[in-house]
Amino acid sequence: MTVSTTLGAMNGFTFHGGRLAGAELAWPQAPRPWIDLSTGVNPDPYPAPPARCAARARLPFPEEIAALEAAAGAAFGVDDPQRVVALPGAEAGLRLLPHLLGAKTAFAPGPTYASHGEAWTEAGARLVEREEEAEAVVLVDPNNPDGRMWERADLLDIADRLGGRGWLIVDESFADMWDRPSVAAAGHERILALRSFGKFYGLAGLRLGFALAPPQMAQRLRRAIGEWPVGADAIAAGLAAYPDVEWRRRARARLCARADALDLLLTRSGLRVIGGTPLFRLAEAEDAGERFGRLAAAGVLTRPFELRPRWLRFGLPRERELERLRAALEGSA
Amino acid sequence: MTVSTTLGAMNGFTFHGGRLAGAELAWPQAPRPWIDLSTGVNPDPYPAPPARCAARARLPFPEEIAALEAAAGAAFGVDDPQRVVALPGAEAGLRLLPHLLGAKTAFAPGPTYASHGEAWTEAGARLVEREEEAEAVVLVDPNNPDGRMWERADLLDIADRLGGRGWLIVDESFADMWDRPSVAAAGHERILALRSFGKFYGLAGLRLGFALAPPQMAQRLRRAIGEWPVGADAIAAGLAAYPDVEWRRRARARLCARADALDLLLTRSGLRVIGGTPLFRLAEAEDAGERFGRLAAAGVLTRPFELRPRWLRFGLPRERELERLRAALEGSA
Repeated sequence: MTVSTTLGAMNGFTFHGGRLAGAELAWPQAPRPWIDLSTGVNPDPYPAPPARCAARARLPFPEEIAALEAAAGAAFGVDDPQRVVALPGAEAGLRLLPHLLGAKTAFAPGPTYASHGEAWTEAGARLVEREEEAEAVVLVDPNNPDGRMWERADLLDIADRLGGRGWLIVDESFADMWDRPSVAAAGHERILALRSFGKFYGLAGLRLGFALAPPQMAQRLRRAIGEWPVGADAIAAGLAAYPDVEWRRRARARLCARADALDLLLTRSGLRVIGGTPLFRLAEAEDAGERFGRLAAAGVLTRPFELRPRWLRFGLPRERELERLRAALEGSA
Repeated sequence: MTVSTTLGAMNGFTFHGGRLAGAELAWPQAPRPWIDLSTGVNPDPYPAPPARCAARARLPFPEEIAALEAAAGAAFGVDDPQRVVALPGAEAGLRLLPHLLGAKTAFAPGPTYASHGEAWTEAGARLVEREEEAEAVVLVDPNNPDGRMWERADLLDIADRLGGRGWLIVDESFADMWDRPSVAAAGHERILALRSFGKFYGLAGLRLGFALAPPQMAQRLRRAIGEWPVGADAIAAGLAAYPDVEWRRRARARLCARADALDLLLTRSGLRVIGGTPLFRLAEAEDAGERFGRLAAAGVLTRPFELRPRWLRFGLPRERELERLRAALEGSA
């Protein structure tokens, strides 16, 4: 497959969040199964118990949602469960917030997760280029894809500057790798944070995330999503996982080691690792577009960036995928 | 337990959607386990396969969501999957819609499911008493709790009268008992319908519902909830259940027989059955409040209505609960 048909085949689908089936269509000759490195989900899932049959059959009890929110809040350093709102994924939260906050202008400095800008535009807000013009500021901490982390004091300063006019939204979807509390733990009345369960815990299919917000805004969010925002399996998994400090400690160490091993493979194949978190690595090369196509032809799906043609993002491979990935990377160089 | 302490103990919790833990606290002496008849969920769940581990671990594929929406749409008589939007429960849909539709006035004639009015008020709309004043009209078909059903032609007339100024929202959460297509199948450009998976299929814990809408509004809804609105278990269950015409046929017959049997028990205990659907029965008595308390003291939770003190709603009991329910009903008369 030539480079030009490869890039041509990318037309018509975005790679946001993984598009494995699209890639399978575009590269029908690629060896299967594909190695899907297009997302940033932990390849070693938390061993979550499935929900009991009885819990699948009935509506979640309000007490179960409250217990889940308390357990998650404790893990995020947010002790007041009134400030913790369970959501069917962090994505649902970031999509919903623009409709609730009513800000007319939003500043979401890139490069970052594209859904933020889309969500604000969709809700009728105008994207602006300077913090000073914005009623809502959206920062991703650590940032996706480059892994940039924000100083707590800087975030609080931004929220102070916004003052009564707006909101600082901090997307902490990839923050579970570190023990530091959420920026929402500071209790600032203009700060909203978002957390994702599925990425660090490797259970993205359960659709669980949280908004951390001042009590009044938390209440508005609860009312906007309704009383049963998450399902029985998400509740069972979250209740087991968030108090499990030991698993979290071991998972962090394991992910760091895996990220180091991936960096070695990427570097050896001539890519330069320029950022990321332990759940994904951002690599750079002059010929990143061609490498993307050659990796796809070898059955390896990575994440390209339309506006940054020299970048590729790699999620962590599974243990059993390492050898094939190594060969594909060498072949793509 | 006297009637007065019974009713006193109801203060402070609503019975919306079941409040079993609250009832257990309020009637600590009641025999356990409680028989929870406070919701309208099928007590014989669809034998849905759990999601595969691999599907729990990753984000749902867009193709899976699309296949789910197509299967559900076919069951609802809506052939164009562009008009079908999967949601984490019908409740999430009815809570979200007021924020998206932008109607300033809403008419949700009661008695009906209280969340509709709450959702519109929460989004800043004013509830009005006449259809003529409303930019949004909300009807529940069949209605909860009285089971009133709407003629298709009347619904289309209402939507026509609303014309360009607003939306008719038809909550079809309990409509799966009948084979007739959704009102949304008519393709009227001002009609939105909501469907629930969990009630008829007895899997309320999976959080799955659908909005059926004209393509442009469906697209807005998709963007407001994000690309992964439902979890792996909801997808697996919906993909299995909606094409299963035979199970649906048998479940309908079984539910009708169970509802008939429940009616007999209710009637024998001196209650008058005045409405409902096969998933719940609405009964009336002068002393409904006292009966509610006596049933609770016997470990049977039903659904009272603050504004209709002579009403009690009963969900369907499980087979094994029938004898205890019969005794409790006789004791409560």
